[in-house]
Amino acid sequence: METTTRHTEDLSLNTAIVRKLLVDFIQDGIQKPGFRKGIIGLSGGVDSTVVAYLSVEALGKENVFGVIMPYKTSSPQSRTDAELAAATLGITTELVDITPMVDVYLKPANISDRVRAGNVMARQRMIVLFDLSNRERSLVVGTSNKTEVFLGYGTLFGDMACSLNPLGDLYKTQVWQLAAALGVPKHIIDKNPTADLWEGQTDEGELGFSYKRVDQLLYHLIDERRSVTELTKMGFEEGLIAKVREAVKKTQFKRRLPIVAKVSNRTVNIDFRYARDWGI
Amino acid sequence: METTTRHTEDLSLNTAIVRKLLVDFIQDGIQKPGFRKGIIGLSGGVDSTVVAYLSVEALGKENVFGVIMPYKTSSPQSRTDAELAAATLGITTELVDITPMVDVYLKPANISDRVRAGNVMARQRMIVLFDLSNRERSLVVGTSNKTEVFLGYGTLFGDMACSLNPLGDLYKTQVWQLAAALGVPKHIIDKNPTADLWEGQTDEGELGFSYKRVDQLLYHLIDERRSVTELTKMGFEEGLIAKVREAVKKTQFKRRLPIVAKVSNRTVNIDFRYARDWGI
Repeated sequence: METTTRHTEDLSLNTAIVRKLLVDFIQDGIQKPGFRKGIIGLSGGVDSTVVAYLSVEALGKENVFGVIMPYKTSSPQSRTDAELAAATLGITTELVDITPMVDVYLKPANISDRVRAGNVMARQRMIVLFDLSNRERSLVVGTSNKTEVFLGYGTLFGDMACSLNPLGDLYKTQVWQLAAALGVPKHIIDKNPTADLWEGQTDEGELGFSYKRVDQLLYHLIDERRSVTELTKMGFEEGLIAKVREAVKKTQFKRRLPIVAKVSNRTVNIDFRYARDWGI
Repeated sequence: METTTRHTEDLSLNTAIVRKLLVDFIQDGIQKPGFRKGIIGLSGGVDSTVVAYLSVEALGKENVFGVIMPYKTSSPQSRTDAELAAATLGITTELVDITPMVDVYLKPANISDRVRAGNVMARQRMIVLFDLSNRERSLVVGTSNKTEVFLGYGTLFGDMACSLNPLGDLYKTQVWQLAAALGVPKHIIDKNPTADLWEGQTDEGELGFSYKRVDQLLYHLIDERRSVTELTKMGFEEGLIAKVREAVKKTQFKRRLPIVAKVSNRTVNIDFRYARDWGI
């Protein structure tokens, strides 16, 4: 019965095909606009590690630049893992401690709210990454995966900011599969995913569900356009369905450009919306 | 003869209609997603002043919050004019000096390059504005005009970042007309436009042409889709045409979202691109 098979769907990837496709995507995305180099924020997590592996395959290790940007509360293991990935690949990295940039704003304003503080951290990292991308004459290769993109679990103009994103159409569980195929160190694949914005934070703890479960649900909801009735029949809990649908809807603003008031007969992103590389 | 009339085209606005349209746009853009309040970065320039005037008309003065964010080299006149506009409108403002946030990054890295420094400043302002928008439960009303948008004369994820942009379809010379209709203080309309990122900077000095001239050219190029041959016949200098066409093409990436590698049958911004307010 279809619903049963789909319910146990593991979102398995043909990693060979996807790997080739993403390597080509990165190569085109960097080289077509006239660059040779990609720059990546390395967190020590599986997403940015996979992006680094793919980028080295696409551009050569001399054309991949890693930036490690810890905050004072970041886990030392995050940095160690980022350095391990970079050393394994043989890419150059730079370490920029964002603590002074973050604290010089948070402290005087006495901001302790975790969401606000987390957004400031993610955006300070964006500033560093885009500034260094200018210095290194390179483009920022993003690391947001499809689960994060659709749940809106990321900071707009922060970690969601990039020039090109190879992982935006792969769910987290698919990134894990690709990571294994690429030979990413096993302990990086196996560790508990975290934005590492405060001590003890884990994605699954914060979201309130496992990636395995939510990826299946998102797949049926987004890719297969299943209705709530169908999803319930498949065995997804009503509470989870409601929570996820709400998250997707409420965060649509993070996936679209700002709206512009149309007053002329040719308006940016309404009637003027050539591709990003149209002029090249 | 059509070309002659168009050449002398002053891009004149029906300010009454445009004013109403933009006021409605701001009202809908704020209230439809469930907010009451707009937040605006006030620079003392005509664009942000016009946005503040329109926002007060749309939301009421108690629902408009202005943020003044000088850097140590910013002209004191900029701050004075921003405060004047706010006082005239009766809106609340907050002053956040971005100098510490900017310098704590630029100084240790010894960055003197004006473009890099300017981008850091614009992005630090974005951080402050979006953080305060969270605290104030408000949305960021943007201030980029159509001339800036199409020339790419702005910082991506910096001053170009907002939730809604009422001015993005009005050329600078049209913003001036609207400003006069709204009763914006004359000296704010008449002053030399500047991003105020370093002392003595003026937009027209940096761009190498006047807003009056480039707006006419952009109108024929973008809105009327005129060819180079036609534009030359209209009397626009070949050098200017080439420069402006190049600027529009080279900055297309600032007007579009990051590209995402498509690997599934439903991909963000390729097959999944509901309107920004779809979920509401």
